[in-house]
Amino acid sequence: MSKLKIGIIGFGTVGTGVYKTLQNFPDVEIVKIAVKNINKPRPVETPEGLLTDNPFEIVNDPSIDVLVELIGGTEPAWEYISTAIKNGKHIVTANKELLAKKGEELFNLAEEHNRVCLYEAAIAGGIPIIMPIKTILAGNKINKIQAILNGTTNYILTKMDADGASYEDVLREAQTLGYAETDPTGDVEGYDAAYKITTLATLAFKKRVKLENVYREGITKVRKEDMTHANELGYKIKLIANATIDENGNADVRVHPMLVSNDMTLAHINYVTNAVAISGHPIGNIVLSGPGAGEFPTASSVVGDILAISAEFGTTDYMLPMMRCHHDHKANHVHIDNTFNKYYISITAPNAIGVIAKIGTICANKNISLASIMQKEVAENSTADIVVITEKCQEKLIKEVVNELDNCTVNSLIRVAEG
Amino acid sequence: MSKLKIGIIGFGTVGTGVYKTLQNFPDVEIVKIAVKNINKPRPVETPEGLLTDNPFEIVNDPSIDVLVELIGGTEPAWEYISTAIKNGKHIVTANKELLAKKGEELFNLAEEHNRVCLYEAAIAGGIPIIMPIKTILAGNKINKIQAILNGTTNYILTKMDADGASYEDVLREAQTLGYAETDPTGDVEGYDAAYKITTLATLAFKKRVKLENVYREGITKVRKEDMTHANELGYKIKLIANATIDENGNADVRVHPMLVSNDMTLAHINYVTNAVAISGHPIGNIVLSGPGAGEFPTASSVVGDILAISAEFGTTDYMLPMMRCHHDHKANHVHIDNTFNKYYISITAPNAIGVIAKIGTICANKNISLASIMQKEVAENSTADIVVITEKCQEKLIKEVVNELDNCTVNSLIRVAEG
Repeated sequence: MSKLKIGIIGFGTVGTGVYKTLQNFPDVEIVKIAVKNINKPRPVETPEGLLTDNPFEIVNDPSIDVLVELIGGTEPAWEYISTAIKNGKHIVTANKELLAKKGEELFNLAEEHNRVCLYEAAIAGGIPIIMPIKTILAGNKINKIQAILNGTTNYILTKMDADGASYEDVLREAQTLGYAETDPTGDVEGYDAAYKITTLATLAFKKRVKLENVYREGITKVRKEDMTHANELGYKIKLIANATIDENGNADVRVHPMLVSNDMTLAHINYVTNAVAISGHPIGNIVLSGPGAGEFPTASSVVGDILAISAEFGTTDYMLPMMRCHHDHKANHVHIDNTFNKYYISITAPNAIGVIAKIGTICANKNISLASIMQKEVAENSTADIVVITEKCQEKLIKEVVNELDNCTVNSLIRVAEG
Repeated sequence: MSKLKIGIIGFGTVGTGVYKTLQNFPDVEIVKIAVKNINKPRPVETPEGLLTDNPFEIVNDPSIDVLVELIGGTEPAWEYISTAIKNGKHIVTANKELLAKKGEELFNLAEEHNRVCLYEAAIAGGIPIIMPIKTILAGNKINKIQAILNGTTNYILTKMDADGASYEDVLREAQTLGYAETDPTGDVEGYDAAYKITTLATLAFKKRVKLENVYREGITKVRKEDMTHANELGYKIKLIANATIDENGNADVRVHPMLVSNDMTLAHINYVTNAVAISGHPIGNIVLSGPGAGEFPTASSVVGDILAISAEFGTTDYMLPMMRCHHDHKANHVHIDNTFNKYYISITAPNAIGVIAKIGTICANKNISLASIMQKEVAENSTADIVVITEKCQEKLIKEVVNELDNCTVNSLIRVAEG
């Protein structure tokens, strides 16, 4: 078997983990690593001449077989990757944003040049999910994914639950500990999870899902009181990336907080751990969980992808037939207003008795059944906190309900997951 | 791509699931299915001439590329499989017993004839575990597996816990429901799980583990009182298949009941669900869970294996390089007496105060620390139930402790899992 020659662009935490791990695999040779600053001190020592500050020394080097892209973001990553494919290289990437925004172009280009783009590390870090879907689960028709794909938000929600603390307080703590970035928008507003579910759903459903059709809500409005209510009702609150497809090919793909019943494995996935629950036929339901980020878990996936190419390198025409990710069909997207969900609604009302009757009437008029209605403490000014869980109903109807509750304050409206 | 021709031996539940699932994959042609009785009514209709009662019509048919063996047991399965390999066929099997007992011979033979033997369905049913270890986790050094690999015993233990019922009562109920066989020995005494962990540990550790060196204890002695005590202490009791390997290549592979802390995902794997927790570097810890048996989940894995062969069929010399399972090295096995564990000990003693002092002294003399000691109700005759959890200590020392507790009854000695 010939030695596989790779070039790496990006030598941060993940790149360093990949470099260290590949030392055990003499069949893979790291020819070049492109960095921003060659003179920056690094946690590993590298041979003279291995580092370069010119990524095109990799992208345009005909002796390099695989480009490992670990810089993230759309540009200049797309320039490097697209040029590398045109130059005949396979791609291994951890770039979830690029995959979500440029996936179609990327995989079409790879297909055209008879090359593969592998991206296990981009979705759920170290958890084996992309390769299993492509290989051992290939006999399945997958119709549902429910996943915790962002470690930062799962950390914040777990901490809010464990400590009874507010979102703001936990976010500050997470920033101090390095679990959340100074500008946490990408995580807490659900962009990161939306990127990941876009690519994961595309692969699982074998139809291209478009990022702009993925509904997205972050966790910034989840209150500690919602956590308390959820616990009392036997749920946890998690940021869930949710994707379903019906028999007619209509895809419903979204990211938002959900109440997750304690019966479900996802309710027990805590702190920075990620998890992906998959349902399909014939498999039924499986749940894969593990570290969603970090130097070494992510390196595990990057190296796994490199070794998959290495294993077949030189033995075939490099088609890696199971590894392709080209999809001719696009998914039809269902608008969030047309989806059906169970809802948790937290309401503060001036008068408890009157408002329970009112909620009951409004919902009954729209044929919405209530699974439970719970009156919490009545304050001195006789306002009351009321918590409602509905049965499954259409999103646009629940929005009407919220609008019609005109003399109450609707504190939270959170969807409830179904196992 | 040429059409892959397969023959199936065994057309029970799993075979039927495979047959149905493969209808969606026109690249795979089922040429023949061998059954015991051609005239038996079947849940699916098959084309005239597809069934045969002579397995050698498959094994010796040169036009067939893959033998799918679904009858289980060592003989005549081994005869069919070994002949088929010699005749140039790849093997897909769900036969955990054969793999555990004949694995070395089987994989050596496959290697010699440049064929693969795939067996995803044999370990943990539908859960993707074998293929991920061979492919995307290939960069890892796996050093620990903790798994729930037998649905029957997990069902019984879950039910005992949920209903506060005895082993005997739940077993009878499980037999009525078809979750346990009339002779449940293979499941409840841990043979089934031992077969599976033998093969799984061999693959994960890249060293051949021998079944006869796998320590095994079943669940028949687990009492409902142990369940109660475990719950009070924050644990569940599960039948755990446990495998570790140290840096010097010493493997400790065993199956026995364990107290599993509620902090661990395995504590929440209930009823017939299976789960495999894997630790290694660089991955860290992952947990894969799902259906461990059943027509369709098992079919998912069998079909996945068939499609993996199909994908590369005709494009290479069929080596499927990542798919091989040949191991030149044998594991050194650690005897159970030399392993280190935490222990739960349930004792009935004639005199509570005296016995706590005695336990303390005996353990202190052997340098065994106690994590907790709990005195339960004292009966009218002044005997007391005492529950002890030790810190980690050597198995042979804990056996000495049990022997030295001469005027007490040791009801249970159960090892405690560490996360």
